[in-house]
Amino acid sequence: MAEPSDGDERSEAELKIMGATYRALCEHGYANLTMQAIAEEYGKSTAAIHYYYDTKDDLLAAFLSYLLDKFIDRVHEVETTAPKERLDLLLDRLLTHREGSRDFMIAMLEMRAQAPYNEAVREQFQRNDEYTRYLLKTVIADGTDSGVFSAEDPEHASNSLMLIVDGARTRYGSIGDENALEEARRTAREYVESVLMAE
Amino acid sequence: MAEPSDGDERSEAELKIMGATYRALCEHGYANLTMQAIAEEYGKSTAAIHYYYDTKDDLLAAFLSYLLDKFIDRVHEVETTAPKERLDLLLDRLLTHREGSRDFMIAMLEMRAQAPYNEAVREQFQRNDEYTRYLLKTVIADGTDSGVFSAEDPEHASNSLMLIVDGARTRYGSIGDENALEEARRTAREYVESVLMAE
Repeated sequence: MAEPSDGDERSEAELKIMGATYRALCEHGYANLTMQAIAEEYGKSTAAIHYYYDTKDDLLAAFLSYLLDKFIDRVHEVETTAPKERLDLLLDRLLTHREGSRDFMIAMLEMRAQAPYNEAVREQFQRNDEYTRYLLKTVIADGTDSGVFSAEDPEHASNSLMLIVDGARTRYGSIGDENALEEARRTAREYVESVLMAE
Repeated sequence: MAEPSDGDERSEAELKIMGATYRALCEHGYANLTMQAIAEEYGKSTAAIHYYYDTKDDLLAAFLSYLLDKFIDRVHEVETTAPKERLDLLLDRLLTHREGSRDFMIAMLEMRAQAPYNEAVREQFQRNDEYTRYLLKTVIADGTDSGVFSAEDPEHASNSLMLIVDGARTRYGSIGDENALEEARRTAREYVESVLMAE
């Protein structure tokens, strides 16, 4: 078996499998996701997938890692280093529909709900979460150093923003709250302007 | 079949079935929950449960309605009518471990993730959510009328607080973020004090 690759090292085949996993999740949800369904989207046999990923859990953990890398790529597109603008752009990226449709949000919520039972998936969710909060914390701490923000506790401030993001994703997936992402963007803006901004 | 009852009208048998459902959810999670497992906790046959609830989905929707009634009972214990204190107590009740253990939070998150596929459960989740936001909105609007708060949009303010609550429940259940409820209580306090309080 080949070793699954990270970041820019993913082969064309691996990237195609990631795309197939995305489409299969949207179509079948998480509970009914099978390697066969992913193989059908991929247009090859399940053996061609097992060459890279031993088990479905390995594949799903790799898929979460791929989503994180895509998010990091989009963050790197942000060229400004001004803390307020960087934080705004991070929140824009965390709270748009760009990651996908409602079907994808539902599948991700199912996967999150199964994380307690699935070590590989849970650990990758935790890594994605830690990295995202690290990005938020860093820009809030930088902004506090430069006097734009006055965050007493950048770690807590980043946790606050992630609570708002995770709440929106859950509400949109679970009860179909169509406005959840927009409401969350507005709430995050209020939090930044009223709690974090220096006077 | 008897008609399932609401609120104070629940019979002793129905209340015992609700307790058995709670224990079975904690022990087996949602995906592995069976009527047989609930019957074992109840100490009677599955037929004795089916007398009240046609299907497992009916039972789970009734269970969510029971949780809402328990929450409303606890809210009614709050005797103060002062808006700031009432809002604080509502948030305390929404963000404590009192509803149960981590196991219960995990089972509830699983149920939320299945809501898109299950109409009875989804509609009851929506009712619980609407009622809770209605309570929050009312106290915020009352407080704005009396000059304690200065909320431009009490509906949005209540949505903001629910985003924080739902984010905490998801994080605690999914990735086992032990501090999620406490962090969310602190975030909600900051939001109330910095965004909602009148100058």
